[in-house]
Amino acid sequence: MAGDAESMAASQRSISVSEFFAKNRHLLGFDNKRKALLTTVKEAVDNSLDACEEAGIPPEIHVSLTQVGDDRWRVSVRDNGPGILREQLPQVFGKLLYGSKFHRLKMSRGQQGIGISAAGMYGLITTGKPVRVVSRTGPDDPGCEMTLAINTNRNLPEVMSDSPASVRWERGTEVEIEMEATYAKGRLSVDEYVELTAIANPHAEIHYRPPSGPVTFSRAVDAMPADTREIKPHPHGVELGTMMRMLRETKSETVSAFLRGEFCRVSEAIASRVCRNAKVCASRAARSVKPDDAERLHSALQDAKIMSPPTDCLSPIGAEALLAGLLKGIKAEFYTAVVRPPTVYNGNPFQIEVALAWGGDIAKDEGDKAKLIRFANRVPLLHQPGSCCMHKAVTDVRWGGYGLSQTKGSLPSAPLVVLAHMASVWVPYMSEGKEAVADYDEIRKEIKLALAECGRRLARLVRRRKRRKRHQDRRDTFDRYIGEVADAVCSILPDTDNSRLLSNLRAIAKTHTQRADEQYDDHGKVIRSDDIPDTIIIDS
Amino acid sequence: MAGDAESMAASQRSISVSEFFAKNRHLLGFDNKRKALLTTVKEAVDNSLDACEEAGIPPEIHVSLTQVGDDRWRVSVRDNGPGILREQLPQVFGKLLYGSKFHRLKMSRGQQGIGISAAGMYGLITTGKPVRVVSRTGPDDPGCEMTLAINTNRNLPEVMSDSPASVRWERGTEVEIEMEATYAKGRLSVDEYVELTAIANPHAEIHYRPPSGPVTFSRAVDAMPADTREIKPHPHGVELGTMMRMLRETKSETVSAFLRGEFCRVSEAIASRVCRNAKVCASRAARSVKPDDAERLHSALQDAKIMSPPTDCLSPIGAEALLAGLLKGIKAEFYTAVVRPPTVYNGNPFQIEVALAWGGDIAKDEGDKAKLIRFANRVPLLHQPGSCCMHKAVTDVRWGGYGLSQTKGSLPSAPLVVLAHMASVWVPYMSEGKEAVADYDEIRKEIKLALAECGRRLARLVRRRKRRKRHQDRRDTFDRYIGEVADAVCSILPDTDNSRLLSNLRAIAKTHTQRADEQYDDHGKVIRSDDIPDTIIIDS
Repeated sequence: MAGDAESMAASQRSISVSEFFAKNRHLLGFDNKRKALLTTVKEAVDNSLDACEEAGIPPEIHVSLTQVGDDRWRVSVRDNGPGILREQLPQVFGKLLYGSKFHRLKMSRGQQGIGISAAGMYGLITTGKPVRVVSRTGPDDPGCEMTLAINTNRNLPEVMSDSPASVRWERGTEVEIEMEATYAKGRLSVDEYVELTAIANPHAEIHYRPPSGPVTFSRAVDAMPADTREIKPHPHGVELGTMMRMLRETKSETVSAFLRGEFCRVSEAIASRVCRNAKVCASRAARSVKPDDAERLHSALQDAKIMSPPTDCLSPIGAEALLAGLLKGIKAEFYTAVVRPPTVYNGNPFQIEVALAWGGDIAKDEGDKAKLIRFANRVPLLHQPGSCCMHKAVTDVRWGGYGLSQTKGSLPSAPLVVLAHMASVWVPYMSEGKEAVADYDEIRKEIKLALAECGRRLARLVRRRKRRKRHQDRRDTFDRYIGEVADAVCSILPDTDNSRLLSNLRAIAKTHTQRADEQYDDHGKVIRSDDIPDTIIIDS
Repeated sequence: MAGDAESMAASQRSISVSEFFAKNRHLLGFDNKRKALLTTVKEAVDNSLDACEEAGIPPEIHVSLTQVGDDRWRVSVRDNGPGILREQLPQVFGKLLYGSKFHRLKMSRGQQGIGISAAGMYGLITTGKPVRVVSRTGPDDPGCEMTLAINTNRNLPEVMSDSPASVRWERGTEVEIEMEATYAKGRLSVDEYVELTAIANPHAEIHYRPPSGPVTFSRAVDAMPADTREIKPHPHGVELGTMMRMLRETKSETVSAFLRGEFCRVSEAIASRVCRNAKVCASRAARSVKPDDAERLHSALQDAKIMSPPTDCLSPIGAEALLAGLLKGIKAEFYTAVVRPPTVYNGNPFQIEVALAWGGDIAKDEGDKAKLIRFANRVPLLHQPGSCCMHKAVTDVRWGGYGLSQTKGSLPSAPLVVLAHMASVWVPYMSEGKEAVADYDEIRKEIKLALAECGRRLARLVRRRKRRKRHQDRRDTFDRYIGEVADAVCSILPDTDNSRLLSNLRAIAKTHTQRADEQYDDHGKVIRSDDIPDTIIIDS
């Protein structure tokens, strides 16, 4: 019989994580040739920026795309970061689920230990070519050049060649991947990704070489982003089973030391109180806590009043930089930015910032929808907008209240660009490809609050514009009839001085319709709106 | 310095796949307590149905949900399948990425080797309780009961207890998981999932025990679904790098034997032709093929005319069963079903079937949108409709052409239920939680073709109804004036027999407006529409 327990057992076996993702590559952002190119550049640049920032080095990144055949491209990304030790190179570039960022709570672009190795695997699968990596840790290090092929059956790197580096640059890492891919300009392109990355990372210098010729995105600010700290998990985000495992594996001696040592915001006093409420002795050996005791301990910990986690672990882009980015890329009439205070979801600190630009050159066609630009930990998110929390937040806001038209549940139909950024020690992505943020209530709420504040600021201008338009229309109406009125008056009262009457009537019409214009004396000049923070109005 | 290469290397380490998914549990369908319950039931039932079918046993499945505390539920699923050997139990239920379904191309519900272990892991994380499993392979097997806890740090099962089974049933597997969860009725509920599973699996008997009391979904057909075969990959779906690896690892001696043995649809003649075109000797040792030769071989293979893969590996639900399911659950006026012939995406055979129900009790409110019910390999897909290929296909169809109203890019606003099923040896899911099908052009096209055929059939009825309404309106108009017309005629020609004139006029009005009604003589009876295949029209 084909299907009895014995025969079924014979076909059971382990699946390596690289086999799994090779077959499910669309989960990682390699669904098609165009996206594969974008995902590869993105993963490499993310790693480069993370490494530079961690080492406190102002990033200088070279990205180049070279066509080497029909639907075949070579992607090369080089940074001036701290470099990677020779013995680490194979794992970092040739093994999925390997890295330094997964086991900590710290704001960084990478967090999974999958990205760049997956890109290398995709290259290998589609072209048979291994990844080429060069790294030097400084002028005294001769450096090393390796070619690496991931063994997908075992999720292990195979070193194909290993030699001293022969490069002139003194410090950094270069990765080169040949792959089946296509390059196209426009929406969802590598071009768009690099441009948005420059906006969200004004401290980085990016030299980009697409086929159409090199472009440099110069450093816009000299200051590095505020240094972000690693934090410990918050007790209100831990689950019972996880805490039980932590108890079994802890190096702390006592329960009290465990609570203070493995979580943030637990003082001696809080630990004692929690233990007392849970009827567990605070000085008991942590590893001997029984399931029932652990359950009471967990429940007491959840009930305890504990300060929110520290939020200085986050480094937002900032209103200034957001506005500068929008001003550079988009010709609008109104720009504003709101940075929300940090807050917490599932025990993880996060912070939302939103900027918007309105009017001007943004939308020429009536009915065009607003455009949403999304970032998470300074990385632009280009795909899957529909399932992203940020998109949902924008469609949830009632833009009608701010003078814009909107079909319920859609983006507003207005000349509007919205830019949203989530900074967090752990961004809950919808897929391993990190294309959209999962829809957590706390996150959506913060984005909506920021949007509402931007909306209120915009509404003042939109209302003023509407009023001004109305007054202008009224004056135009007066103007159209003033001549005839004057003529009529003159024919009734022949003594009247027609031209004096005309100019008097015009003056009256002007005073009556002028008030709305007062704010617009400096036609064509940039007005920094002092009464509205972080807002720029350009009137032409 | 905090961030040099040495210090960074110290924090690099491997991430176990279970750690990864524990932290990213939303990828597996465990984003919230309600969904966790659904996902657990779904994974267990999927495995049960797969096991029964593979063993040729008509499935009988018991699903029960028991509340054991605030937000705590015990899920138990038992089948009458072939059972699982004692030595396999720990891996099957306590290790992610382990199973028999990943490394083959065969239509089955499970395909990843993640689901049920992930459910157990979720239970362990949230409650600290291990999974309980009982299995017997037949009356002679005493069976075995185990409690298992996954070690997330190492992705390995830990056997907490292991004893002979003490159950009265003689064959099958029972899994019991305690977890943090909430139960709710209505949309996206376990209730809905079980109901839809019964529709798509009429050969299964399901005993369901939600808190509101037991329900049995009886077996509706005795025939088991057609036995599906495992197939080999099609040469047009293989990529260069993958083929290079296959060449290195093959057990075939020659290149020709390799091509014939590892792929489907490659005959001796095709293999020779491919080798000749690639300038590679067909009798050369397969494992000695160099990269350049492999590249030519791959390219010749892609250019060769090769038959599509066999499609008898698919077992659609069938028009009869789909209609029966809709008839049972939905009171409509019109039902139709279309089963498309099997076809291929990326070398993977797949088949689309679509059914729809229209009118009747479906939608009472004007403007209500159509409802879409999605299945993949007989499993209902409840979440993430917006990102699903099936949803996209329904919104892409221009329903206006079939007499329904629709806003561009939305589901039609009509009293309509659409049911879509994709059967494939490899369903490209959008996430490990298997909630939506990725948007491949070939798949979307097939769904749209099936919908268009359904639409054309529906359009006849919709048009007929509109015509009938128009005629009825005309007759009503005649009726309203016939009396006055008769009176007027009588007053002009006093000899006229008023009542005879009246009945004659009525007869004329009737013949003029009757034709549209002809098909509707048997009011209230079910008419099987002979001219439209697989269609049922109910007129009341």
